[in-house]
Amino acid sequence: MTLRFLTAGESHGPELMVIVEGMPAGVPIFLEEVDRDLTRRQLGYGRGARSTKIEQDHAEVAAGVVAARTTGAPIGVRIVNRDFANQPAEPEPLTTPRPGHADLVGRVKYGLEDFRLVRERASARETAARCAAGAIAKQLLRPFGARVASFVVSVGPVEASIGAGPDWPGVLGGPELEALALRAEDDPLRCPDPFGSERMRAEVDGARAAGETLGGVFCVVACGVPPGLGSYAMWDRKLDGRLAQALCSIHGVKGVQIGRAFRLAQLRGTEAQDPIVLDRGEVVRTSNHAGGLEAGVTNGQPIVILGAMKPLSSVRAPMSSVDFATGTPADPPYVRSDVCAVPAAAVVGEAMVAWILASALVERFGADRLDIMLEAHRYAADAGLTGAIGPVVEAEEIP
Amino acid sequence: MTLRFLTAGESHGPELMVIVEGMPAGVPIFLEEVDRDLTRRQLGYGRGARSTKIEQDHAEVAAGVVAARTTGAPIGVRIVNRDFANQPAEPEPLTTPRPGHADLVGRVKYGLEDFRLVRERASARETAARCAAGAIAKQLLRPFGARVASFVVSVGPVEASIGAGPDWPGVLGGPELEALALRAEDDPLRCPDPFGSERMRAEVDGARAAGETLGGVFCVVACGVPPGLGSYAMWDRKLDGRLAQALCSIHGVKGVQIGRAFRLAQLRGTEAQDPIVLDRGEVVRTSNHAGGLEAGVTNGQPIVILGAMKPLSSVRAPMSSVDFATGTPADPPYVRSDVCAVPAAAVVGEAMVAWILASALVERFGADRLDIMLEAHRYAADAGLTGAIGPVVEAEEIP
Amino acid sequence: MTLRFLTAGESHGPELMVIVEGMPAGVPIFLEEVDRDLTRRQLGYGRGARSTKIEQDHAEVAAGVVAARTTGAPIGVRIVNRDFANQPAEPEPLTTPRPGHADLVGRVKYGLEDFRLVRERASARETAARCAAGAIAKQLLRPFGARVASFVVSVGPVEASIGAGPDWPGVLGGPELEALALRAEDDPLRCPDPFGSERMRAEVDGARAAGETLGGVFCVVACGVPPGLGSYAMWDRKLDGRLAQALCSIHGVKGVQIGRAFRLAQLRGTEAQDPIVLDRGEVVRTSNHAGGLEAGVTNGQPIVILGAMKPLSSVRAPMSSVDFATGTPADPPYVRSDVCAVPAAAVVGEAMVAWILASALVERFGADRLDIMLEAHRYAADAGLTGAIGPVVEAEEIP
Amino acid sequence: MTLRFLTAGESHGPELMVIVEGMPAGVPIFLEEVDRDLTRRQLGYGRGARSTKIEQDHAEVAAGVVAARTTGAPIGVRIVNRDFANQPAEPEPLTTPRPGHADLVGRVKYGLEDFRLVRERASARETAARCAAGAIAKQLLRPFGARVASFVVSVGPVEASIGAGPDWPGVLGGPELEALALRAEDDPLRCPDPFGSERMRAEVDGARAAGETLGGVFCVVACGVPPGLGSYAMWDRKLDGRLAQALCSIHGVKGVQIGRAFRLAQLRGTEAQDPIVLDRGEVVRTSNHAGGLEAGVTNGQPIVILGAMKPLSSVRAPMSSVDFATGTPADPPYVRSDVCAVPAAAVVGEAMVAWILASALVERFGADRLDIMLEAHRYAADAGLTGAIGPVVEAEEIP
Repeated sequence: MTLRFLTAGESHGPELMVIVEGMPAGVPIFLEEVDRDLTRRQLGYGRGARSTKIEQDHAEVAAGVVAARTTGAPIGVRIVNRDFANQPAEPEPLTTPRPGHADLVGRVKYGLEDFRLVRERASARETAARCAAGAIAKQLLRPFGARVASFVVSVGPVEASIGAGPDWPGVLGGPELEALALRAEDDPLRCPDPFGSERMRAEVDGARAAGETLGGVFCVVACGVPPGLGSYAMWDRKLDGRLAQALCSIHGVKGVQIGRAFRLAQLRGTEAQDPIVLDRGEVVRTSNHAGGLEAGVTNGQPIVILGAMKPLSSVRAPMSSVDFATGTPADPPYVRSDVCAVPAAAVVGEAMVAWILASALVERFGADRLDIMLEAHRYAADAGLTGAIGPVVEAEEIP
Repeated sequence: MTLRFLTAGESHGPELMVIVEGMPAGVPIFLEEVDRDLTRRQLGYGRGARSTKIEQDHAEVAAGVVAARTTGAPIGVRIVNRDFANQPAEPEPLTTPRPGHADLVGRVKYGLEDFRLVRERASARETAARCAAGAIAKQLLRPFGARVASFVVSVGPVEASIGAGPDWPGVLGGPELEALALRAEDDPLRCPDPFGSERMRAEVDGARAAGETLGGVFCVVACGVPPGLGSYAMWDRKLDGRLAQALCSIHGVKGVQIGRAFRLAQLRGTEAQDPIVLDRGEVVRTSNHAGGLEAGVTNGQPIVILGAMKPLSSVRAPMSSVDFATGTPADPPYVRSDVCAVPAAAVVGEAMVAWILASALVERFGADRLDIMLEAHRYAADAGLTGAIGPVVEAEEIP
Repeated sequence: MTLRFLTAGESHGPELMVIVEGMPAGVPIFLEEVDRDLTRRQLGYGRGARSTKIEQDHAEVAAGVVAARTTGAPIGVRIVNRDFANQPAEPEPLTTPRPGHADLVGRVKYGLEDFRLVRERASARETAARCAAGAIAKQLLRPFGARVASFVVSVGPVEASIGAGPDWPGVLGGPELEALALRAEDDPLRCPDPFGSERMRAEVDGARAAGETLGGVFCVVACGVPPGLGSYAMWDRKLDGRLAQALCSIHGVKGVQIGRAFRLAQLRGTEAQDPIVLDRGEVVRTSNHAGGLEAGVTNGQPIVILGAMKPLSSVRAPMSSVDFATGTPADPPYVRSDVCAVPAAAVVGEAMVAWILASALVERFGADRLDIMLEAHRYAADAGLTGAIGPVVEAEEIP
Repeated sequence: MTLRFLTAGESHGPELMVIVEGMPAGVPIFLEEVDRDLTRRQLGYGRGARSTKIEQDHAEVAAGVVAARTTGAPIGVRIVNRDFANQPAEPEPLTTPRPGHADLVGRVKYGLEDFRLVRERASARETAARCAAGAIAKQLLRPFGARVASFVVSVGPVEASIGAGPDWPGVLGGPELEALALRAEDDPLRCPDPFGSERMRAEVDGARAAGETLGGVFCVVACGVPPGLGSYAMWDRKLDGRLAQALCSIHGVKGVQIGRAFRLAQLRGTEAQDPIVLDRGEVVRTSNHAGGLEAGVTNGQPIVILGAMKPLSSVRAPMSSVDFATGTPADPPYVRSDVCAVPAAAVVGEAMVAWILASALVERFGADRLDIMLEAHRYAADAGLTGAIGPVVEAEEIP
């Protein structure tokens, strides 16, 4: 029994709903931060008209928050779909499945013959509800000093120059990573490298012109996370796994790396480790190849996770498919979509990472009241145990 | 309430235990297959003496299987540690943590001052118990035609030549993938490419001589999996995420890709999709970039997952650490270990993938009795729904 | 991973929300039946003005149902609080806890100093959301022939004369039990015995005049439930326990009996059992002391469960308490309430029983699609296994 | 993610296994207390030869406890069945189901034709494993001052005279209740009333002579439980429900009451409540009708729960059943059994109550380390919040 959330709502239904259950009482909740994350999810060069013009999502908190604090009651949030009134009452059924979408599997899974019924729930629109849950989770993390941020690493073939070389996730410290994320906040593609962003936008423009779409890689960073979250004692408590699940549950995300795992796999043992050294009496690490997690447990270093998003499936270019109504080859009708949603996925990634960390936090410090949790946290730190693992030493300057 | 398993046992304790709960009744269980997977986990060029000489793991099934069939009761399995009697009664405490290991985080998490207590449970020895659970899960999958196999893709910097180019996960069909896995079965490194294997072994030899360790990448393949497992309806039902968690919960595995996700992220939409075409009246796909999962649901294509394992943390070469007993810099004592465990991780990966698929199978077809499940499966297939998605067409020959 | 639901909403907040997750696709959903159960919950002699006049609850289904069928997507339901607009913007804080209410424990649990914050969520108003979830669960049960009903057995000291003597739960068959429930449907106290009902109403009138409240006992009956739901294989799968939890989770319900358990405890073995006999070639039972459950599994007989509700805590009569603002003895202010809510609790009991049965149903027959589930059910019955347990033979006439 | 345990093992298999997962580290574990509870479960006037002579259960802890303390690792326990070697290799199949047993439902549930396969797991022998888990849970509760005990209230028609009248659960304080339990410890039927015990034994003797069996009612008491465990915020967090499930999951237990719920249901509001009064500056209660739980949350008063156990199903007297091998009426063969197992059920009841309370404890105070939990507990108490609810004032003397 720990933190839980469930979402409901279809892409073109009247609203999205999310219920967040198990939040400790007494947590200050700024509703504008929920809206802020909803807005951040909608931005990004390459988004279609829906995201940027029509929706302007807003979270209505219908339960669980009184006088800007949680009460221990479930938090109920609604995000009204602003263009719901404009939906046709009985839209044409979709009978030609689009590869990569849920269409075909939805038919098998749930017996739905109109692929529209599949898409309504399978749509990434649902992630708006997750961002609301994640924005609440972030506000539980904050009093413990933990912060979650993100930036875009690549869009299609264009990779940002992060500085510090290709192993940057292992050598950059928290301040550098957060500086990158901060810089990304003002970039239309959430890219911390202005020149890279420019080339990415050109790539997006080219893809749009060609009726194509793009994927990419994003990075979620969590700094200030108390050590000791997660566990090595059972497979389903390992935080690497839980974070990997959280990221790979995002629409279009098919790969994940804690740190730069696929590069790490090419190195030798001594190259891949994070030496334990004494620095003015404190035990610190001189690198962070582990991405903040050892043996499935947070070690006090920045958590660095990369997610790989495949290109969106809704391309405007002709595609090969079959019309199930006629049994003949057909090009599926194009449904309004984005060209690139990696910046949005990064924001959703923050939400999911924040959720997992908040879950692990209440598992360690209890789930009832913020004041009790903070006291437990303080005690653990005083006992010299959280302090046992210091910050990454300064890495080389980032560009 | 679905399939559950819990393991217990320390690396040098008297035994490992695993309880598998929720298995349908009537499933034929060949105990020799459990032992076979235990043995496969122990093999592999680069393993230390413990794996290959001392243990020779054997599963004793103490409950839940009668006359070679499950009864619906929990299945209790014991794996006795054969060298337990040789353990020193009171070993010296370990006070110098090894980077990459659970040592430091175990101290913070559980307040354990002797790092030996941490390592005993954090050790990858636990995965033997998982292999037992996975071997049972595989035997539930078998009557449905589903099979799980694996091979090693790279060891350190040496990558196997899989043929079909770097995008092989997206273009190889099930037969080719299974041929690769079959070939790997006889290779000392579970590598399907004999020349690659030779170079990998040289790499292992070099690492051993240098007191180093190696990581690598392995591939788990599941063929014949019924479509419709998993769901897109809620984040924690998405099978991509659940499989990613399963793999990243394995010791040392820090990254995962469904298909070749990080390459897919570089492509354009039309390049990354799997066209839907008619082939002699059947709807089939001409590629498998999606790795067998669309929208978090199995689509009938082979499931292809890559796991990235970092190099083992127990190197013999000198390392930087701190002795917590004295507060001074120290080189942690070397504890007997392997040089490379990627082949073993691949076998554990099979177990975890089989487990997740078996879980998703009972969610779809019920969890009580194999005969009811098979009838439900037959009905779903007869209804033309599982048949809707045919096999990948022949890919180019593998080398 | 099975059926889940979460509710949110405060008693005087803008609305109640409920998300029902994991419902199979293809289940016909009549929204008027959801509203019907909401209305049934509000009725009952002894309810206050809020229930009978102001609210008139209505379920708005915002997600998961299209063209009167489930789609596999989560079902989102809203119940707007019609008197929300009339709430004072900043009501006086409550500082004197009422015994029996959540007040004191809410302060300890969540650190809430204004007991109003506690009550808002602890209020039985929440059960309206559960009734919506239960009404949906009932519609999943229906195609399998399972029906859930209820009646009131006693109000305060007044017990209905059910006929068939005090062991009626063990000797009445399904038809008789459902006849009782049907008769109760038209009674102002959901009591199947008109004379008993009259005396109960007099009791309610007396209690109201004295500023008092009443509790009582209700019976939930489930007929036509397929045998084989639940399991004896693990403690938390036993359906007795799960049903007991479900009933004891209802506000004010502190006791539960499957059949007439506390009387059964006084009998000898042969008196308490349900003989297995042959009746025209079918194996049937001649009594139902077990209340439809043997070893935690449904046996095809009617499920009969009694719930004991304590008298409501909000009495108008003077009470002993302490004002936490002043630290002096005080009589807590009376908050508008019912005199007796046993009929409502019976309806909520139906919802909770239906929920547990629906959960157990998908565990047995799969959770994806109604058609697959029905086929599995048909197969199990054809195999002579569900038919192995016939109906109770006719019991003596009910009054 | 909270405390979990799974058991495995058949009644006449080689051993029972239990894995307890999620226990905080640093908890002192006295293995002799585990054995002590195993022994207590086996005692009781009315038990058959197996319990009292053959087994003499002993818990072997194979994992998770080092130097008499938990390490955070799963705790693996084995209870070897001492008469396993004496089992016939291929016992005759049982084809005549016994009413009340799992036989018939096991056939439907799992398709087992030999009822012996059903009984092997459905047997109450499994509760030995639960007692081991419960004995561990008790040792987590102890440092928080919480203690769980039990006594027998009635055997068949014979009720113990508890003193304080029939509402004793509501008027006795913790010291009195524990005195009763202590006295029961030395009684052959766990009955605190010597005269009642004598009559109960006579009843057992009479039943044995008649080939009959007996049920009864037991009481589990938990004193010193910190207030604030459980929650009113969601139905499945309510501790009343969770405790009711725990008790009704015990073999033969079909009813449960928190306090004396079915009597409470007959009273008026003011009679059923527990006044809140000031006593030397502390807020205390003058009665405990609520049985220690208000709104599903512990309130610091003694938790008092009654469980109703039906008479055992294995009577020696002739019974009506049907031989499924021949399709003709038959008397099922008598299988060695007890006459009365209420004292054993009471001990198992302790285990289950301890388990639920331990689960709720880690939900409130975190699940990692005893020292952090104790600090959090201390803080909550210092904050005047746990102290807000004092002990029951002295009730009338017990006989």
